[in-house]
Parts: sequence; structure tokens; C-alpha cells
Amino acid sequence: MKESYAHYIDLNYKPRKDDMICLFYVEPAKGVSMKEAAAAVAAESSTGTWTEVTTMKKRIMKMSAKVFDIKGHYVKIAYPAELFEMDNVPEILSSVAGNIFGMKEVENLRLVDNDFPKVILKRFKGPKHGIQGVRKIMRVKKRPLLGTIVKPKLGLHASEHAQVAYNAWIGGCDIVKDDENLTSQKFNPFEERVIKTLEARDKAEEETGERKAYMANVTAETIEMLERVDFVRSQGGKYVMVDIITTGWSALQTLRENSGRLIIHAHRAMHAALTRNKKHGISMLAIADFARLIGVDQIHIGTIFGKMHGSKKEVTTIDREIREMIIKPGEHKLAEKWENIKPVFPVASGGLHPGHVPKLVKTLGTDIIIQMGGGIHGHPDGTTEGAVAARQALEATMQGISLKKYAVDHRELRRALEKWVYKK
Amino acid sequence: MKESYAHYIDLNYKPRKDDMICLFYVEPAKGVSMKEAAAAVAAESSTGTWTEVTTMKKRIMKMSAKVFDIKGHYVKIAYPAELFEMDNVPEILSSVAGNIFGMKEVENLRLVDNDFPKVILKRFKGPKHGIQGVRKIMRVKKRPLLGTIVKPKLGLHASEHAQVAYNAWIGGCDIVKDDENLTSQKFNPFEERVIKTLEARDKAEEETGERKAYMANVTAETIEMLERVDFVRSQGGKYVMVDIITTGWSALQTLRENSGRLIIHAHRAMHAALTRNKKHGISMLAIADFARLIGVDQIHIGTIFGKMHGSKKEVTTIDREIREMIIKPGEHKLAEKWENIKPVFPVASGGLHPGHVPKLVKTLGTDIIIQMGGGIHGHPDGTTEGAVAARQALEATMQGISLKKYAVDHRELRRALEKWVYKK
Repeated sequence: MKESYAHYIDLNYKPRKDDMICLFYVEPAKGVSMKEAAAAVAAESSTGTWTEVTTMKKRIMKMSAKVFDIKGHYVKIAYPAELFEMDNVPEILSSVAGNIFGMKEVENLRLVDNDFPKVILKRFKGPKHGIQGVRKIMRVKKRPLLGTIVKPKLGLHASEHAQVAYNAWIGGCDIVKDDENLTSQKFNPFEERVIKTLEARDKAEEETGERKAYMANVTAETIEMLERVDFVRSQGGKYVMVDIITTGWSALQTLRENSGRLIIHAHRAMHAALTRNKKHGISMLAIADFARLIGVDQIHIGTIFGKMHGSKKEVTTIDREIREMIIKPGEHKLAEKWENIKPVFPVASGGLHPGHVPKLVKTLGTDIIIQMGGGIHGHPDGTTEGAVAARQALEATMQGISLKKYAVDHRELRRALEKWVYKK
Repeated sequence: MKESYAHYIDLNYKPRKDDMICLFYVEPAKGVSMKEAAAAVAAESSTGTWTEVTTMKKRIMKMSAKVFDIKGHYVKIAYPAELFEMDNVPEILSSVAGNIFGMKEVENLRLVDNDFPKVILKRFKGPKHGIQGVRKIMRVKKRPLLGTIVKPKLGLHASEHAQVAYNAWIGGCDIVKDDENLTSQKFNPFEERVIKTLEARDKAEEETGERKAYMANVTAETIEMLERVDFVRSQGGKYVMVDIITTGWSALQTLRENSGRLIIHAHRAMHAALTRNKKHGISMLAIADFARLIGVDQIHIGTIFGKMHGSKKEVTTIDREIREMIIKPGEHKLAEKWENIKPVFPVASGGLHPGHVPKLVKTLGTDIIIQMGGGIHGHPDGTTEGAVAARQALEATMQGISLKKYAVDHRELRRALEKWVYKK
């Protein structure tokens, strides 16, 4: 092993209570031992570099990260919290998920999971509302919340957008959201859309007697984003949504601090560029950790089935983590209570239709938000009927009745199943 | 092909002048044709979804993205600019680099390159200074600029940090930068570091008669970052550096708009989580495109050799693009002049030492910034001697003399070569 790395591994090291623990999947490059690759990661992500430097000090060596556990390809590294600017997520990521992915010593490298020490958790507020807070605001106690994404994702004018939202609400949706790439285009400017869609929401609330919510996509340059947040607030909105990956961690922290009591919904567009390769990059679990730490109230976790790729196991692991406030990935336990940080509402979204509801609830439980875009607006009879069908699927599932049976005297559900289930 | 995707491919389509063109590498999932996979990408990244929806309109179909070229695994898609909020980088990325990486229809997918139409280029200011502007400020006309990163990357106190910087400057470095994960930790708080390091800079300028610069790492939550930017300005700093990937695109746009005449240096920590797998994710070329569009003045492009992985071809392609203002990746030409947008100064960094200089200049030319961290502070005689050696390597290279020959009567260079070159 290179001299400059040898210090960064100690398999007898016992992590201290202020250490942040990261779990990595490490595939060494050809000719590099597992120990050397792991130590190289610990060095580059803390106080080391590729060669010994004359400016190093004993005091600094003592605060270095340590590889303390290697099992197969899985490596645990302990980082003394003092290494970090503890309330600066970009800084923490520039350490534990920075240069290391490009190092020659590794062929593949994946940040799988994080275990934040109390001293870091205390520096963050986490979600303002979390699952229970959102349920209280929405006045829905037990069943999953039902959401839709206005489709087509781009192109509708503001008034058309509001109309589609209205149609979804009166059919039974609780929440209507913008899609990830709809922000403020010429065909549908942000302010006009918010005004019209919130008017439609008020009307839908009055007509249905239910709470309805609109998640306006505020993804933008930070100052512009904050102006949009203020606009939503000024118009009586309860929610904003943001694309956390394309927006980035600095602005997400800014949003959390400057959005009053607005619920924050986190869309994860672009995540799969980082998460999909199981051997490299960053796991959705790790991303969800940081999003929860900062304080999103809801986050997309995938669907198990539907249009997006995602193994059942991965989705259920993320789900368990953000709901139960415990880090407990399948094989690799890094269990730690999350102190003051509330649980996040997991959102299942992507290619879902009413036929998926029983399986979703069986796998993920009832503390989820089920979003259907095409699965509602693609209903053969239109958006309202699509929303009715989705709500019927929820009712059936909550009553323990099979969809097939419930569909016998629920026409909208039957029509949906005929399109997406029976014909397959 | 699914009906809902068929509309998104037209191999006879001729891109219009306002179209943004993206080049993707596409590997279809098993059982999916290349055409269907490509069309699925175009659909999900513009106006489509997995099923036909009743809310679609003819007008909207007309503004859809189109697959117009497929060669092997390489697919070109044209996006009408009206789809985008044209000055909102997170929005553009949520479209062309959003959900698509997770789609079932693809096994692997990579955004390789972008070609921005004039109508989008005009919405951005690009770099404030670029190569020529930075050269003017630094008063260095032809040779590469020489930079160092203070090492060890974490742990030095502010006064130690300033001393190491001073030692590097008087040895011959033009620029000294913080490392990517040094922001404002307890052991080295931002303001104290900036004050002391800029004092050291002034002293070094006076003693050497050369311009010297300090790149303070302002990576943080957006508002805090802007405060740090203001602080650097108030103290007479000329530069800030930021980790563009962990900070994120929203805050980078904010930084560009709120940093006066400060030069912006872009560090790319975490990029390899996205860029390293050649079949999936986002290329460094595409990332550099967006960074240039927003307006960083300098950006890390890798080293060809050194501690980081990165093929020679990839590095030279990125370099050519950001310097020549032309998109021209090896096999796949998407050539377009960059209108009003200045070229970015490419930074070679990561595991470099004086022995690398001739090859770097031969491959990348002289319009580069060469950064050595360990390659300077790891010099057997210390930081100043390390900087002298690096500067000697530059002198030799600019005069067309081999390092071996130049080292005969340049002791510092000889000592560096003895450590890193001759012994190998």
C-alpha cells in the first residue's frame, strides 16, 4: 500500500459517537488490493492525497477518516464530525461523495448509505411537517394520499392546466402537481398558472368538501425560486415542489430555510444518472438521507413496478428508512435513530395506474402518496373518471376488497382495468 | 412501438434553428428496439409519457422533441426551445437529463453533448472574464498559469493555511486554492482564513512583483455563499471557487449573478459519480457546457494522467470545446459557435507533479491552468521548493528544453523529478 494511504485504515478502530459512518461499495482497480482501494477512498475524502506532503501535521493525522470494516466489497468508513462544516450539505458531499468516484484506485465505487451522528443531526431541522403534519393539513387520517401530475407534462396553457387539475380534484385526487420540467415557460407562465390553479383548487374544495392541494414547481435559480415560493404563499398555496437533483443541495437548503410553513415536495429527476448503476455512483438511499436531513416533507422513492426501473428491494428499503426514521438497508446495518428529524412522506410515482394500488399498499403500507399521471389522464373517459377510478382502487384496497370484485359495480375502475390490466 | 412514443421519432426531421440538439448514447433494454428506446427518451424528456392521455392537444404534439438521427448507439434528439424556460438550467436539465435515466426502455443512457441554439445562448451571459480576462488580471500573457491546492486538504488552522499559501506563492505559484471540502470548519473558519490568506497574498505580491491570487471556496447554502462572496470582495479578493456539482445548478446561477467582477473557479467534485461510466449518466463535456453557459471562468477538466481516471480523448475533447467555443466531440459532431459566450479557462488538476508539465502542454496547449497539490507540497524540501520546481518545469517547457536537461542546473526541479519520475 502507498505510504500516503496506510494511515487511513484501521480494522480495529471503534467508531466514536461523533463519527459519521459511510457505507461504500468498492471495486478496486486491477492490481489494487481491496484494503488499498478502501484506504485511498478514506484518504481522498478526508485529509489525504496521492503522495505524502511536507505540510502534514500529527494533529491532522488524528482527525483523518478511517476504514474500520471490510466485508466483501462493502467498506465502512468513519469520519470524525469535526472534519465537516456540519450544516453545509454541499461541503459534506464534497468530502464523502466528492473526488473519490474518479480515483484511479477504484474501478467502481458507490456511496450506499450514511449514518449521521447526533452532532450533525442537531444542526438540521429536517422536515417541517413530515407524514403526520401533511396528513393533518390534508385531513386524511389513514389511507394513502392520491396525487396526479398534470399531463401532458409540457404544453398546456395556464387555464387548461387549471382545468385538468380541477377535473382531477373533483374526481378524487387530493394533490395535483406540476411535472418536473414545467416551471415558467411562455406557454404556461408560473404566476398565471398558480393563480388559476389555486382558484380551481378553491372551487374543488368547496364542491367536494375535501382538502385539496396544488404542488407548484418552483425549480429555478435560487433568488427566482424564492420569489416563486413567496408568490405561492401570497396566493394561499400550501405546497411547493422542487427538483432536488437538478436544483442542487445549496438551493435546497435555502428553500428549506425560506419557505415558511409551505410543505416541500421533492422530485428526484436526474437521480438515476447517479443511482441506477448498482456498482457506481450514489444510492437513492443516500440521496434520500440528505434530502431528509435538510427537510423535504415528501420524496419520490420509485414504484417497484411502473415505467421506471427500480428493484423491489431498493424501493422498500428507502421507504422503510424515511418512514421509520431508521437507517436499515437490507444486508448492511447502519442503524441510528434520527433524533429531532421527522419522517418523510414517501411518494410512489412513475407509470402507475389504478391496477397497481393493492400491490403498492401491500408492499409499502398506507403511509404513502400514490401519484398517477398517465394512469389518470389516460383513462378512456377522461381525467375526472380517471381520478374516480384511482380513488375507487384506494377504497377497495382499504376495505380489503379485490379490484376485480369492486370493479363490478364501479364503472370507472372497471374501465381503467380494462385498459391497463385485463387486456395485458 | 408503443403508440404513445411513435410520434417522437422522425428520421426525416430537419432540426430548426431554435432547436436544442442533444446527443445521447442509448442502450435499449432487452426486447426493446433502438427506435422505441430513443423515442421513449424523446417523449419522457418533452411532452410524452408511457400511455396516451386524453388531455393531449394537437398544438402540443407539434412542439414535441424528435429523434432525428440514429447511428449505432448514438441518438440525436431535437428539442424546440419553446419547451424550455430558457434561462433556467435546472429546468432544462430536468427535461433533457431528468427522468430518462431511470426508464425501463433503456438499459443504459448517457447524455453525451448539447448544442444550444442561439435563442438559448442569448439568455445567458457566460463567463465574465474567460481566458483572456483572467490572463489580463493575472498579468500572465502566454504561459500556463500555475496553481496549487493547500494541503493537507483539511486540518490546517487559518494561519497555517495562509503560511502554506505564502510559501507556494513566493516559490512561483500564481494561484492558491482551497480544496473542495474546505469551507468553514471550526479548525479553519472562512473569514479568518480569507483575511490571513489575502494578507499573505499581498505580502507575496510585494516580494515577487507578480500578481498572486487566492481562490476561496465559498461552497455553502446559497445565502451563506453570497455572504462569503461579499466578504471576499470586501477583503480585496479577486476569486471565488465553488464545487459546482455538490452546490448545484440553481446556486451556481445565483453565484454568477451576484459575484460582481470576481473570477469564478469551478471545481467538479462528485462529477465522476455521473461521468465515469461511459455508457450511462452525463458526460463531463455536457456538464462543462452548462457550466460555461452559466458562466464559470475556469473549470477542472481532468489531467489525462495523474491520480484521477479519465481517458486522454475525453479530456482533450472537453478542453477543445471550452477553449475554442465550439462543440466538436471526436466522432459525433455537434458544431455550433457560442455567440456571445466567452471561452472558459481549462484547469488540469489531480495527482500532477512537475514531471507532467511537458506532456500537459503538448496535449492541451498553453492556455491552461496547471494545478499541483501533492506535487508541490510533497516536494522533499517543502512547499516553496515544490513551487519553484513546478515553475522551473513550466520555464523549461516554454523554452522547449527537456526537464531532464533543465534539471541539471535547477536543483528544485531535479529533486522533484528524483522523487516522482526517476524512481518509478
